This record gives sequence, C-alpha cells and structure tokens, in this order.
Amino acid sequence: MNRKRKLSHKILYVAYVATSIDGKIAKSGHSGTDWTSKEDWNFFQKSLSQMDAVIVGHNTYNIAKDRLKWRNTIVLTSKVDTPKQSGKIVFFNPEKLNLKKFLQNKNYKKVAVLGGSRVYDFCLCNKMLDKLYMTIEPYVFTSGVSMFLGNKFKKYKFSLQSVKKLNKKGTILLQYKNANSSHKN
Amino acid sequence: MNRKRKLSHKILYVAYVATSIDGKIAKSGHSGTDWTSKEDWNFFQKSLSQMDAVIVGHNTYNIAKDRLKWRNTIVLTSKVDTPKQSGKIVFFNPEKLNLKKFLQNKNYKKVAVLGGSRVYDFCLCNKMLDKLYMTIEPYVFTSGVSMFLGNKFKKYKFSLQSVKKLNKKGTILLQYKNANSSHKN
Repeated sequence: MNRKRKLSHKILYVAYVATSIDGKIAKSGHSGTDWTSKEDWNFFQKSLSQMDAVIVGHNTYNIAKDRLKWRNTIVLTSKVDTPKQSGKIVFFNPEKLNLKKFLQNKNYKKVAVLGGSRVYDFCLCNKMLDKLYMTIEPYVFTSGVSMFLGNKFKKYKFSLQSVKKLNKKGTILLQYKNANSSHKN
Repeated sequence: MNRKRKLSHKILYVAYVATSIDGKIAKSGHSGTDWTSKEDWNFFQKSLSQMDAVIVGHNTYNIAKDRLKWRNTIVLTSKVDTPKQSGKIVFFNPEKLNLKKFLQNKNYKKVAVLGGSRVYDFCLCNKMLDKLYMTIEPYVFTSGVSMFLGNKFKKYKFSLQSVKKLNKKGTILLQYKNANSSHKN
C-alpha cells in the first residue's frame, strides 16, 4: 500500500537555466558560469534549498562537483549500467533503467534539473520538466553552447508565470510553466 | 560642407529579433517566423515605420521579399561586387565596400537590422547594433537557428532598458542597449 502510493505520486521537475541574451549557457561543455550575477546565484541557492534532489549531466557534475556533494545528486551518464552510489551522488544511466521510477522510489517530491543542454533536452522530451526558471544575463555571446540540445525542431509550448528584474544592470528572471505539464504546480 | 556633415552624422542601428525561449529564431535558414504572435507583429510594424531603411541577409530577403519591396532595403550578399539596385532594394557586398559610408551617404538616420543570424553577428561585430528589441515567444524549440552566428565566443555587454508583456499567453518584449554603443539614444 505504502509502496504503491510512493510509486504513483507526481514529482515536480523544475529546470534552472542561466543564459545569455542569445540563448547560450556556456562557452563550451567544460566551462562554468562565472558570468552570472550574484543576484541570480542568491535566487538559485535559495530556490534549490527547497528541492529534494538535483539532476545533472556529467560535464555539469565535473564543474560543480564540490558543491554537489552536499545534495542528493543524480548524474546522468552512459558510463554505468546499474546505478553507482558515492555518498549523496548517484551515477545513473537512463537508457538502462527508468529514471522516473528511481526518483519515485526515493520518494523525492521536487527535483531540480540543472543541465547541461543534453540533460535539459532529455528531461523535456521525457516529461520531466514542469517549470522553468530562466535567468537572462545582459550579454550576447554570439557563439557557445545552446540551452537545449535537441536533434529535432519541435514546438514545446510554455506559459509565462512571472518576470522579475534581479538587479540594476538588467539581469531578469523569467518563470515559465510547461503548457503540457500535468503537475498542478 | 554639406557633404562633410552628412558623412559624419551618427546612424542609430536597431536590431529586431523574435526568438523562442531557448534562443532560436527559425527552424532553418529558409523558414519564416509563422510562430510569432500578432502582438509582436503589430509592435514590429509600428516600430519599423519610424526607420529609414532595413538591413537583411539574403535568406531573410527571400522569405520577406514581398513586404520588403516597399522599404529602403539593403540586402547583404557576397554575390555582387558593386551595389546592385532594383527598385527600393539594394544588393550590397560589405566585403567590397564600406556599408556604413554607403548608409551615411544615403543620409539614413535610423536603420533596422532584421537578421538572420549572420547579419545580426556582422552588425554587432562592426558596431552597427546600438539597440536590440527582442521578443521572446513562449516556446522551446530545442533545435534550429541560433540568434547570432558568431565563430568566436565573446562577451558583448548590454543593458536592459525595458520589459513589456505583449499578451496573456506570455510573449514578452525586451529592449536592450549595447553598452559599447556611442549613440546617445
């Protein structure tokens, strides 16, 4: 009975993205986000504290390793067959096992999706992206890593929930809801 | 004297971009923007009416040909050596002649930059992008043409001038100023 309830609860998946004006999230897959504002960082940390776990890709994990070890972190990777645990970190291959079931069995209610672009795309395609917090920093990069790395043009509909200016130089935070999300939040 | 004055006046270059949440402006170089809202279209047409001329790339010209014939249009192309005029349209190769001088000699004061991504990048690199109006439609495409097509990651600083919600479904219009622009507007 208890197990059944756990399996059927709906997880809220919230993606966080910091981007340039032109939709780039990094210079390359191995570079960090040293160009984001402290106001975004403060929002991000505060909001993350309400989440039960985070999902990241292997590159993002490598960049943020030191900070992620304190969180329940699922690192998506093709390098393992079965989940490999190390402290609070789990290396997980979503091609081999059902990620949603895994998260439900852990009884997580709110899961943060932190990128990079392949992970954002994976979660969007697999209905694991209910909300999107997007911070636009006031730069144009003209080159770099795109926010989502899809291999097919598709029109995913979202609705804008709120707009907030985070500082004077013009960082803004947009909150979107996935129009196809079945989560009530 | 008169000629000297004309050559030295500052042109205001204003770029207009309609984008998805994830920074994509089209499915491919040959596809239009049928996914933009009528509210954005209305803003765009009204704002364009105050401009003296528009700059577009060859793909954008081909898509919007019927509407552009009524405007002073400069089509950037490598296919001509000297400017080729056809009605109000001029095909111009910026590798062969100085585009800024050409526009100044025409005595244009306000020039709109309408894309695509190579033209946005060209204008940004060549200090021909003072203001940026960016409309974000509430979609994620995951794939497609990026807003700017630069070949080198660079941090161009902008400042946010205004944010406006254009409709209920969540289209927003951001107005940025290039932080390195020397134009007073």
